[in-house]
Amino acid sequence: MIIVMKQKATLADLSRVIRTLEERGFHPRPSHGATGTVIGVMDAAGDDLTDVALLPGVDQITPVSSKFKLVSRDFQSAPTVVNVGDVEIGGDEFVVMAGPCAVETRDQYLTTARHVAKSGGHILRGGAFKPRTSPYSFQGLGEEGLQIMAEARQETGLPIVTEVVSPSAVPLVARYADIMQIGARNMQNYALLEAVGEQRKPVLLKRGLMSTIEELLLAAEYLMSNGNNQVMLCERGIRTFERSTRNTLDLSAVPVIRESSHLPVIVDPSHAVGHVAYVADMARAAVAAGADGIMVETHPQPSMALSDGPQSLDFPAFVDLMESMRPIAEAVGRRMKVVGDRSD
Amino acid sequence: MIIVMKQKATLADLSRVIRTLEERGFHPRPSHGATGTVIGVMDAAGDDLTDVALLPGVDQITPVSSKFKLVSRDFQSAPTVVNVGDVEIGGDEFVVMAGPCAVETRDQYLTTARHVAKSGGHILRGGAFKPRTSPYSFQGLGEEGLQIMAEARQETGLPIVTEVVSPSAVPLVARYADIMQIGARNMQNYALLEAVGEQRKPVLLKRGLMSTIEELLLAAEYLMSNGNNQVMLCERGIRTFERSTRNTLDLSAVPVIRESSHLPVIVDPSHAVGHVAYVADMARAAVAAGADGIMVETHPQPSMALSDGPQSLDFPAFVDLMESMRPIAEAVGRRMKVVGDRSD
Amino acid sequence: MIIVMKQKATLADLSRVIRTLEERGFHPRPSHGATGTVIGVMDAAGDDLTDVALLPGVDQITPVSSKFKLVSRDFQSAPTVVNVGDVEIGGDEFVVMAGPCAVETRDQYLTTARHVAKSGGHILRGGAFKPRTSPYSFQGLGEEGLQIMAEARQETGLPIVTEVVSPSAVPLVARYADIMQIGARNMQNYALLEAVGEQRKPVLLKRGLMSTIEELLLAAEYLMSNGNNQVMLCERGIRTFERSTRNTLDLSAVPVIRESSHLPVIVDPSHAVGHVAYVADMARAAVAAGADGIMVETHPQPSMALSDGPQSLDFPAFVDLMESMRPIAEAVGRRMKVVGDRSD
Amino acid sequence: MIIVMKQKATLADLSRVIRTLEERGFHPRPSHGATGTVIGVMDAAGDDLTDVALLPGVDQITPVSSKFKLVSRDFQSAPTVVNVGDVEIGGDEFVVMAGPCAVETRDQYLTTARHVAKSGGHILRGGAFKPRTSPYSFQGLGEEGLQIMAEARQETGLPIVTEVVSPSAVPLVARYADIMQIGARNMQNYALLEAVGEQRKPVLLKRGLMSTIEELLLAAEYLMSNGNNQVMLCERGIRTFERSTRNTLDLSAVPVIRESSHLPVIVDPSHAVGHVAYVADMARAAVAAGADGIMVETHPQPSMALSDGPQSLDFPAFVDLMESMRPIAEAVGRRMKVVGDRSD
Repeated sequence: MIIVMKQKATLADLSRVIRTLEERGFHPRPSHGATGTVIGVMDAAGDDLTDVALLPGVDQITPVSSKFKLVSRDFQSAPTVVNVGDVEIGGDEFVVMAGPCAVETRDQYLTTARHVAKSGGHILRGGAFKPRTSPYSFQGLGEEGLQIMAEARQETGLPIVTEVVSPSAVPLVARYADIMQIGARNMQNYALLEAVGEQRKPVLLKRGLMSTIEELLLAAEYLMSNGNNQVMLCERGIRTFERSTRNTLDLSAVPVIRESSHLPVIVDPSHAVGHVAYVADMARAAVAAGADGIMVETHPQPSMALSDGPQSLDFPAFVDLMESMRPIAEAVGRRMKVVGDRSD
Repeated sequence: MIIVMKQKATLADLSRVIRTLEERGFHPRPSHGATGTVIGVMDAAGDDLTDVALLPGVDQITPVSSKFKLVSRDFQSAPTVVNVGDVEIGGDEFVVMAGPCAVETRDQYLTTARHVAKSGGHILRGGAFKPRTSPYSFQGLGEEGLQIMAEARQETGLPIVTEVVSPSAVPLVARYADIMQIGARNMQNYALLEAVGEQRKPVLLKRGLMSTIEELLLAAEYLMSNGNNQVMLCERGIRTFERSTRNTLDLSAVPVIRESSHLPVIVDPSHAVGHVAYVADMARAAVAAGADGIMVETHPQPSMALSDGPQSLDFPAFVDLMESMRPIAEAVGRRMKVVGDRSD
Repeated sequence: MIIVMKQKATLADLSRVIRTLEERGFHPRPSHGATGTVIGVMDAAGDDLTDVALLPGVDQITPVSSKFKLVSRDFQSAPTVVNVGDVEIGGDEFVVMAGPCAVETRDQYLTTARHVAKSGGHILRGGAFKPRTSPYSFQGLGEEGLQIMAEARQETGLPIVTEVVSPSAVPLVARYADIMQIGARNMQNYALLEAVGEQRKPVLLKRGLMSTIEELLLAAEYLMSNGNNQVMLCERGIRTFERSTRNTLDLSAVPVIRESSHLPVIVDPSHAVGHVAYVADMARAAVAAGADGIMVETHPQPSMALSDGPQSLDFPAFVDLMESMRPIAEAVGRRMKVVGDRSD
Repeated sequence: MIIVMKQKATLADLSRVIRTLEERGFHPRPSHGATGTVIGVMDAAGDDLTDVALLPGVDQITPVSSKFKLVSRDFQSAPTVVNVGDVEIGGDEFVVMAGPCAVETRDQYLTTARHVAKSGGHILRGGAFKPRTSPYSFQGLGEEGLQIMAEARQETGLPIVTEVVSPSAVPLVARYADIMQIGARNMQNYALLEAVGEQRKPVLLKRGLMSTIEELLLAAEYLMSNGNNQVMLCERGIRTFERSTRNTLDLSAVPVIRESSHLPVIVDPSHAVGHVAYVADMARAAVAAGADGIMVETHPQPSMALSDGPQSLDFPAFVDLMESMRPIAEAVGRRMKVVGDRSD
């Protein structure tokens, strides 16, 4: 059930509705979005809420039949636009998030950040906490990495996106990041989704590599039902039988998500294909498919990278990619904004 | 092993090499391509062919280490360009093959063909023999369907591509078709591959929905090692766990194939996604990804189609798609040629 | 639609029903099974067949809602028992089909056949025509291989099962084989299914490595709707993301098939797992899961095999497996019959 | 790198080795197993540790080439036996863990627990914290559920296994549970793996439905490298294209894991197949395949279950299953111990 509050309802009205629902044993989840305040109610499918519908401030009660509610176009038809600094994601602009897989050293990161900014990238990516399949692999610099990213933001003016891997680290990461990323392995880590959902900060939620699109939307529903409306989804490849690419980029996810959800969709071709030779083609394809942006890995010396070197673009290749995406973006009705530090 | 013949070698030289190889128990497979004549030799990995290397007309013997030989860029670095009528596939032009899934009636097919021609399509597709999962589904009109397609070619000037499903039907289909299609279910039907390989007619080989790219290339190797050099490959979606699309379009296959093979790559977004709502986005993505063309389904009344209605574009949607692909094609260095009957 | 004929209906009655259906544009497919004669009718879902129901000899007309008809338990509740020589497949006996992947030489095959017979195997397997992913791999001995298998049958008294790969080879293979095998790659080769369906010989239909169980049953429906009732299904592993085994043995297919179909189910653990270390465990699991038999590869010298050596049991391992399966078979209510040449 | 300490080394020796490694920038992870103490060292692949090898108490330094170290048979050849109460897992006994998916009410759980005990089950399963795909589904009773499970243990004498879903809940769950379960969705939740790894309590680690066997072993490596040696692995089905079962039970994982790891393997057929009709066949197959035990769902009234009802055995079916597994267990050299409350 979704309880839609009137625009002119007071906070007192809201409190009363919530209290009434709690007294009846429900767990109401208020959500304050661009189009108003709604309350999601779990496990109320068969219940009679007529009395709640009559409370002051209640506009209507919608029995949402689809498995996901708040993320659905049925619930909000206009696209969600997430604002990060002066970048708009989900609107007319096509957004490029770029940077190395991991923050390795201050020098490596600042060099990359400056190059991303100069080449027209909009947001800096970088990993400070790295979830790794093996306990013996490099796990990231931790808070030191976050500090280096903050310094890069300071210098370039570009917002930063970085991953958070556990509920207890959410406050720390939230202090530094402009966008909190939830990685593919954690897409169904519900304790983490709830902790990030309680923040009021943009989130980039990556699709699990063997998760369906429906499960991705349900994971986003965890974020939204905990009150966070600034959710972006990221297609980054799924696991299939094909082995010539690291994963299989499911680019159809872009129109599929856009049809059923109002949330912005970002494509990460680097993790999907895993080989630098295929990244640029897939980035261009993402633009043409209607994505709201891409997240791409670039590194000063890919062959020396501590993680994901084989899929990282070197700087000349990144510049080429930026230039080649622009006319495609325009062909599909988007523009690539010039932001950040463009001085040379 | 690949035995490369000199350009100036005579047919007598060729015969002697083949005879020598046969006497030694091998099965030599001569292939006459744009760049010259070569002979593929099966099961000769460990053999000493020094004496053969010394025969007149032999240029060099290449121990091909990759699993595929004739289809490989190692063997021919320049891209193969297949000529069908005045359409060039694999060169600068981006090619659109369009039409209904199945030829249903003369009227349905001619109406569609005229519309494809008028909208700028380059090649007419249509199924006369339909492989169907259930024995109780519509199996196509057979030769009558081929005659209708031939009539449409006559009227529009556009070449036709149609599927052949059994070795015994190859001569019949070859008599009508400009391009013979081998469908996804038959990608590893070796008797069929050999029969079509013996033809001297362009072939469109569709990737099996359960097949790796390597297996697709090896299936093409069957065609080429039987002497047919005019082979085009078609990505049409693979089977994965995701169910919001019929199959998962593996668009990364385009750059992967282009890196390892000289053969043209066509993308079929219709069969891949299975829903008309996603076809155009994926068609545009295919252009941006570097495909040599697309194959797309269009039907006068998709809701009445005997097969694959839900994934067929109606005529206005097809016109929109044609127009939207042109600037993307240009952005990636291709052009979309105007051919056929453009009179109204 | 399934038209069930009365037990006492005459051939004249049958002819009239068929003729009537044909006059109305249908393609009736009579099938003569253990439980009587039925006629499958394609594409008649919405049609009114009341008049046909009134014809002499017609017992009832069943609108079959499931996608498959003749293979379904709805259509025949008693299990199909296929008789091959004095071996019964699908009844109380647990059946072992064993032999090398390919017939390589007379000596290799006869040695193996004798060992299979002596160890208690019931049916000899062996490939004379081998579908291979690469055109440059060993493709089998052809008819010479069939002759060697026939000699082995003569000597051991065990029936033989071998693969047929093209419609044109069906008569040749049918002349030698007791059971015709349709391989995984050809599960949806409809021309082949029809050609084998027209034979009156037991068939072993292997599941495609990325085919659903429903598609397997529909492929069996092609065989049965062409008149062949002696169909056995074979689970041999499906393609998944897991790579520590060649394919993933989907053993749940055994109870799933047994619930929806009356056809016997054989399990091929050798092709599924691809490593000899796991074959015996999976063979025993197949017995416990309720399979009607297994097909397993054994070779005198697995390391010298021309194909599938890594997954072939040597003779001592085969003997061990035979002995270890017997008590499990008894635990699930089956017995392993002693047949063939048991003299030493 | 694995540093193996001598049996007679002192704690002072161990401290010195650890301190030396830390001074050199490594993160040593000591692990005290049945066969002695070893120290795993991350990120030391290329380093020269000759000086460390010379320290007192060091037996040898093994450059472990396989991706996983502590979980490997290369590191410990004897199977790990986990003791829980008087149940031994990984030895000669075949162990049955049973109970409902979720603890719903005191009455429902105690009724089930008594029945499991009476029927010869060895360990009680039950979920108090439920990770659910949708935020609107029943999420478990929390600590109240744990208290009910503890009461059931008290009454029946059977140990209990239950899931922990977040690092912060580890101390709470550890207080109640005899075995802590890490669910499929959390297999790569590294913060959780580390928190559970620091406990000295048996763990049941379920394979992610999107995870390879190698990734499962690497997740177990996280547990072991944090000091927890009592790790059991659980195969519970992987995600494939097949949809007639909920997931595809990858039973080959049993011999694959047993070949490469010394850890016990449990099979959960209930979650794998998802339909009660197939559970018992797959449970019997698991016994025959060599598993150390199964985990199976049973419920007093499956049709009324709040979660996973369709895959839960009712009590008579559970009794039948118990009886049918015994002779198969004996056929593969195992016995099913009689424990707990067998009074009627």
